[in-house]
Amino acid sequence: MVDVGEKPDTVRVAVAKGKVVMRSDTLALIKKNKIPKGDILTLAQVAGINAAKHTWELVPLCHPLLLTDIQVELALSDNAVEITCQVKATGKTGVEMEALTAVCGSALAIYDMAKSLDPAMRIQDVRLVRKSGGKSGEVILDS
Amino acid sequence: MVDVGEKPDTVRVAVAKGKVVMRSDTLALIKKNKIPKGDILTLAQVAGINAAKHTWELVPLCHPLLLTDIQVELALSDNAVEITCQVKATGKTGVEMEALTAVCGSALAIYDMAKSLDPAMRIQDVRLVRKSGGKSGEVILDS
Amino acid sequence: MVDVGEKPDTVRVAVAKGKVVMRSDTLALIKKNKIPKGDILTLAQVAGINAAKHTWELVPLCHPLLLTDIQVELALSDNAVEITCQVKATGKTGVEMEALTAVCGSALAIYDMAKSLDPAMRIQDVRLVRKSGGKSGEVILDS
Amino acid sequence: MVDVGEKPDTVRVAVAKGKVVMRSDTLALIKKNKIPKGDILTLAQVAGINAAKHTWELVPLCHPLLLTDIQVELALSDNAVEITCQVKATGKTGVEMEALTAVCGSALAIYDMAKSLDPAMRIQDVRLVRKSGGKSGEVILDS
Amino acid sequence: MVDVGEKPDTVRVAVAKGKVVMRSDTLALIKKNKIPKGDILTLAQVAGINAAKHTWELVPLCHPLLLTDIQVELALSDNAVEITCQVKATGKTGVEMEALTAVCGSALAIYDMAKSLDPAMRIQDVRLVRKSGGKSGEVILDS
Amino acid sequence: MVDVGEKPDTVRVAVAKGKVVMRSDTLALIKKNKIPKGDILTLAQVAGINAAKHTWELVPLCHPLLLTDIQVELALSDNAVEITCQVKATGKTGVEMEALTAVCGSALAIYDMAKSLDPAMRIQDVRLVRKSGGKSGEVILDS
Repeated sequence: MVDVGEKPDTVRVAVAKGKVVMRSDTLALIKKNKIPKGDILTLAQVAGINAAKHTWELVPLCHPLLLTDIQVELALSDNAVEITCQVKATGKTGVEMEALTAVCGSALAIYDMAKSLDPAMRIQDVRLVRKSGGKSGEVILDS
Repeated sequence: MVDVGEKPDTVRVAVAKGKVVMRSDTLALIKKNKIPKGDILTLAQVAGINAAKHTWELVPLCHPLLLTDIQVELALSDNAVEITCQVKATGKTGVEMEALTAVCGSALAIYDMAKSLDPAMRIQDVRLVRKSGGKSGEVILDS
Repeated sequence: MVDVGEKPDTVRVAVAKGKVVMRSDTLALIKKNKIPKGDILTLAQVAGINAAKHTWELVPLCHPLLLTDIQVELALSDNAVEITCQVKATGKTGVEMEALTAVCGSALAIYDMAKSLDPAMRIQDVRLVRKSGGKSGEVILDS
Repeated sequence: MVDVGEKPDTVRVAVAKGKVVMRSDTLALIKKNKIPKGDILTLAQVAGINAAKHTWELVPLCHPLLLTDIQVELALSDNAVEITCQVKATGKTGVEMEALTAVCGSALAIYDMAKSLDPAMRIQDVRLVRKSGGKSGEVILDS
Repeated sequence: MVDVGEKPDTVRVAVAKGKVVMRSDTLALIKKNKIPKGDILTLAQVAGINAAKHTWELVPLCHPLLLTDIQVELALSDNAVEITCQVKATGKTGVEMEALTAVCGSALAIYDMAKSLDPAMRIQDVRLVRKSGGKSGEVILDS
Repeated sequence: MVDVGEKPDTVRVAVAKGKVVMRSDTLALIKKNKIPKGDILTLAQVAGINAAKHTWELVPLCHPLLLTDIQVELALSDNAVEITCQVKATGKTGVEMEALTAVCGSALAIYDMAKSLDPAMRIQDVRLVRKSGGKSGEVILDS
């Protein structure tokens, strides 16, 4: 584990994105909120928030952090549910892993809820989009 | 949650795959086990196993299951660490979510350990490859 | 802890109920799904399911159990959100605690989401309504 | 989730109360510490403390917090075990949910330990009594 | 992880022991239940039971198991609190790790509660005493 | 639980040690990294780090803490794997329990991985070696 004890407490923000690619008829059911297992977008939001809070026990070398905000936004594109997660904390290390874990948690919930209809769905393009706070300041990696 | 109480206990197997795509110089460091944070492939294996065991608390509508085996295999391709997870259980519902969660957990650990070198890494192609057990029998989705 | 090892595996069902009593204007906002923090009834359902799965780590002498079904139903009465949780498992001990924990988890989520509007809300009448399975068979305590 | 990142760190205190209403003969056994499953009041205290620490994973939109104190007090009235929980933290958001979750955790442990004797027990009147810290200062809701 | 899927479900029992060695005046306070932090023996019992239930998330290659009984017994010898934990399950793999984890959990709680008085306490002789069930049958290692 | 709310945030360090005593042929296999279940020293390190992060839910009266560093070092002596864990945090209470829990977690993982070869292994001499930070300043108990 990296010793972060000497680092100052700064405001940390990280944004990660990803998507669950699926068939258009599956997407159409999501658009109409007709997935039989329930309200898939709300559950995917909750699952993303929950996953972010569990990052410390999922990622072996992650430090526990006091997350001050977790936002999970879902949008429907032509062939996918697009996931954007923004995580904030005031602390000694960044929240990149929390944002990426939130995207994965949200994507897994989507897969779970629609898997009986479309088991070939794929989680794609899970990546860090930008982060700020700490020594490196604002870093923009993607959009 | 789907009521699985009436389903018989059968042997369930699921295999999921995914990869973490990265720069070739990052991959070269992994090949030589020179990532400064530690032994990345062993930690990614442990993280995958650990994530599979936490599936019930990450995926909102997942049932708890008695997993009897979790295998995480990692291979290095030209531009990625390729992850294959196989999960087994004897139970009333399948282990697809556990296999997919293991792939995500393993991928997140890889990202975490190499992120200072290559923050633009991406988690790609997380998908169910095959499953067996239960009413639908053997289902092969991908290779 | 009670040794349940000698008991046979039987189908266990338990139903618990409870309610969150609140002001009528708070209830009116819930009816219109206008609580600023989000979709309160869906979140309360998810919270109930999640709490049931965490029963083993909340109640000191509870055994871990393979829950096969968790249903959380919410209804709006004159002055309260009424919560009904039904939990099922096939196992050596009953699921009363899981059903009651689900009601508490669901009630706490409702309180959390509406607390800025109505901090005087109260969780009331959390009780076991009926259970079946095991030596005592069907037991009806309330309706 | 509410973004609390801009809020100052202040000392937060919350007190919640509730009770488990039961038959007088059950209460008499508790008074004599004769419940067969063990020392019910000590276990209920521990369960309340433990539940408060798990609040972040039970209540979907709760932030993780560094709790600095959790006190669970139990008193026997005519027909109930009365539970009072006080939680403190220095942080950016209040500890109401932690105090209420502690009351629920304590009540569930009491129910669990006495349920074979008196399954009709009820958890009643779980409510926030007072809180201080943060923008709203001291708020007294009940006694 | 070892694949235990092919093994039959048998009744598994494991007994582990250990002790917390301390000064005689610390032990005298425990004998009189005068440790300022609370009822140390009851808390150590609860902590042992709780630790056993968390074994799956503490020991990297442990399988989740449906524990049917966890007993933690504490005895005071001349210079130590002696801990004996017996764990049972019906399953495909043994419960040695659960029994040993219970001893460690119990010992850590004892240390925590008495540490302000006697920080030089030591956890000693944590070992498996006997186990039964599975292919190897009854195995007695120590007393 | 001790109320630590009034204590200042200081840098806290604690070092704990312990060992797993075993037969020399078991130790020889570890030296050559030939334990069939996998890379035992890396897994013991990860298990120690993971256990430290779970201290709050294992030790009943422990406060949650923002650990800033966890180091687990393993060395092979004549008859044992020797474990040294150092934990750091900036906070209102010490990290002794986290360091001791890390030693136990690491020791349990070693036992688990080698138990089929040498079930008579023993966890010995788990003790606090030194701590600093807080009112009592540097305290050296052992080496």
